[in-house]
Amino acid sequence: MAGRTKFILDESDMPTAWYNIVPDLPAPPPPPLHPGTGEPIGPEDLAPLFPMALIEQEVSTERYIPIPDGVQEVYRLWRPSPLFRAHRLEKALGTPARIYYKYEGVSPVGSHKPNTAVPQAYYNAQEGVRLLTTETGAGQWGSAISFACAQFGLECEVWQVRASYDQKPYRKLMMETFGATVHPSPSDLTEAGKAILAAHPDSTGSLGIAISEAVEKAAGNPDARYALGSVLNHVLLHQTVIGEEAIRQFEMAGDTPDVIVGCTGGGSNFGGLVFPFLREKLAGRISPEIRAVEPEACPSLTRGKYTYDFGDTAGLTPLLKMHTLGHDFIPDPIHAGGLRYHGMSPLLSHIVELGLVDAVAIGQNECFAAGVRFARSEGIIPAPEPTHALAECVREALRCKETGEEKVILTALCGHAHLDLPAYASYLAGEMVDRELTDGELAVALETIPVR
Amino acid sequence: MAGRTKFILDESDMPTAWYNIVPDLPAPPPPPLHPGTGEPIGPEDLAPLFPMALIEQEVSTERYIPIPDGVQEVYRLWRPSPLFRAHRLEKALGTPARIYYKYEGVSPVGSHKPNTAVPQAYYNAQEGVRLLTTETGAGQWGSAISFACAQFGLECEVWQVRASYDQKPYRKLMMETFGATVHPSPSDLTEAGKAILAAHPDSTGSLGIAISEAVEKAAGNPDARYALGSVLNHVLLHQTVIGEEAIRQFEMAGDTPDVIVGCTGGGSNFGGLVFPFLREKLAGRISPEIRAVEPEACPSLTRGKYTYDFGDTAGLTPLLKMHTLGHDFIPDPIHAGGLRYHGMSPLLSHIVELGLVDAVAIGQNECFAAGVRFARSEGIIPAPEPTHALAECVREALRCKETGEEKVILTALCGHAHLDLPAYASYLAGEMVDRELTDGELAVALETIPVR
Repeated sequence: MAGRTKFILDESDMPTAWYNIVPDLPAPPPPPLHPGTGEPIGPEDLAPLFPMALIEQEVSTERYIPIPDGVQEVYRLWRPSPLFRAHRLEKALGTPARIYYKYEGVSPVGSHKPNTAVPQAYYNAQEGVRLLTTETGAGQWGSAISFACAQFGLECEVWQVRASYDQKPYRKLMMETFGATVHPSPSDLTEAGKAILAAHPDSTGSLGIAISEAVEKAAGNPDARYALGSVLNHVLLHQTVIGEEAIRQFEMAGDTPDVIVGCTGGGSNFGGLVFPFLREKLAGRISPEIRAVEPEACPSLTRGKYTYDFGDTAGLTPLLKMHTLGHDFIPDPIHAGGLRYHGMSPLLSHIVELGLVDAVAIGQNECFAAGVRFARSEGIIPAPEPTHALAECVREALRCKETGEEKVILTALCGHAHLDLPAYASYLAGEMVDRELTDGELAVALETIPVR
Repeated sequence: MAGRTKFILDESDMPTAWYNIVPDLPAPPPPPLHPGTGEPIGPEDLAPLFPMALIEQEVSTERYIPIPDGVQEVYRLWRPSPLFRAHRLEKALGTPARIYYKYEGVSPVGSHKPNTAVPQAYYNAQEGVRLLTTETGAGQWGSAISFACAQFGLECEVWQVRASYDQKPYRKLMMETFGATVHPSPSDLTEAGKAILAAHPDSTGSLGIAISEAVEKAAGNPDARYALGSVLNHVLLHQTVIGEEAIRQFEMAGDTPDVIVGCTGGGSNFGGLVFPFLREKLAGRISPEIRAVEPEACPSLTRGKYTYDFGDTAGLTPLLKMHTLGHDFIPDPIHAGGLRYHGMSPLLSHIVELGLVDAVAIGQNECFAAGVRFARSEGIIPAPEPTHALAECVREALRCKETGEEKVILTALCGHAHLDLPAYASYLAGEMVDRELTDGELAVALETIPVR
């Protein structure tokens, strides 16, 4: 018997505040700019899209923001989430490393996304909003916001990237079970969608296009607001419950992470786990290496440009300073739909620029190999996105096997793959393709970034 | 704030023994009979199919059977499972009743099935077996045994009912991800399958046929054994970890159930939750009503005959005294695939005959209505099977609303519906059909029961 398998907090030990890393950083992150004036945007520019409580959180410099009781009550449907020690994976790898994973797949929709969907729905409902609009790719975020809207009596309208809408019907069915309306994107319901369809009648869509559609719908309806599942400061803020819990769970385990690894698409799962640990590191209490893992097919942190770009394809959002591949970039249809965003959280981009976080890109076959290894030892079939983090864990654990180091590795297992099983079938059948972005493709993509 | 949402035991408080209800019953259950001799079967008759440790458990009269360390170690990947107080559902129903649900969807495959799959794989591996064969309907059991075999290095071969194999590919993909081989049943790999295909080339299969195929394959290979996911005593025995945990969790909650409700297909989820509470009831310490819920389309407990019948279609199993609709009966293709078995656990059938458990049958539209209500309040989308138990919970809670009674209701939420979402789509589209078994159909079905 090799000691405890999981570390579970009591409900009474759940965090009661979100952690805002901004005041602890050595330099403040660059502000979003108005695309017309080039000046920093103010709260009034965001008011058509977001409720005031979230706008305040977006620009807050308070270190801690209390989690309202109404949000904590819904969090308790699945939180606190477990921290696992991966005894069986360690044994399968023959590594002296100790591997821990913080598992967010216990949420009703199977991922970390409800951590922010719930407060977003809550604040909108508090301010009298009737309808939330949003985009979704593979559907994790759309499921989460549909669930959250059902909890607070809000209507929910989701634009889902056409490719996923057609190929992955289960997520759409989940959203509808929670009571949401789901449209394929591009749709003929918005000007942004119509423009894309006019130019590309067979467009299979992208997250950038779907964002344009959802933003346009919200901006045109005074009873509606828009919800974003990643990228923005308030989204990463809400996700810090992951890291705050994990810190307490490591105290239970009597251990300290030497390496922290997470996957990055828009950055919310990664920031959510990492920021509280980074607070501890900046304060000199711990000294883990912190590593972001992204797909080779969509390498915004490792090969993108750190500059101002739009968050969506149609250019409806403010300009955000971030690592970007260009807002027109449509990545290869890899199976990790949640990692196919052209940009990266501006806050996380800034933190990478400050040298506080490293980044690495990995191809999807290596990731799925790690996913299968994990499934057959730990039982949980990881969603395609966190297989990227697991692949880096496996690399690190095998390095430890060579050197004999007993490193403590922590990874964010942000969701399970119950609705992504065809991706595993493709891998097991040897049909999965790794295609690294070429330098030529990258140059073309970067050209769409607006010159300032 | 309405008090705690969930009650979670520490790993150190997990049960270390399974509970065998047999010695506590006022009369012993009737033994299985050899179909040729009509005499009670002995261990040697079962040896080609099961390892000796499981055969001993099948006939044991010991009250408690220790759970081996190697099994507990794997249980800890997801156990202990949470007991939830359904505050939000209570509020949605406006009931004074207090509703609790014991949630088994936290297991790696999303149901209670691994509770027995793990010990079955463990004991087979201990006795040197190389290959486990089994049947599966919708695929919950097949997924569970595939996962368990991966944990102990066993090969796994699954015959999946053709209708599900074709219509619900995700479960097959899950089994393959865990490393199992999956065949549609009827197949041309067995004599039983070939006979069915010769008579019905377009057969979409049944659990009874798939059992025949898996049993035949195991019986013909000395390195192979067979695994069954429900019905038998040792299966229900393993599931008692559910009820043992729930009893301790009710102590944490400071409450006592007045009504316990579970769905019944083969009886394992129901028996697993109920038997430990029934022990307490038989000892006079508590006095809950205990109620089994089955589908109107497959009403073995409420309308079947209590008599000796085969467990499979081809007549390869011993004769079991149970509530049966006839071993040739193929129920309507309702969405609760796990409740479409022609018979019922002999042990549970015996307990129903003793008057210790009531039974009720409910149509699937009412069940899915309860499922949607539950999903939109509690967040978890219940698998089609436990929606039957939830429908009865809702009936009971609404009765309490009328009478003002503050009853405490406990139900077994034995799994989630991530891989059953098309069933919800069918319900939401108003396309779900309720078809009660007619008296004429029942009479025809019962005629296939062997005369003794």
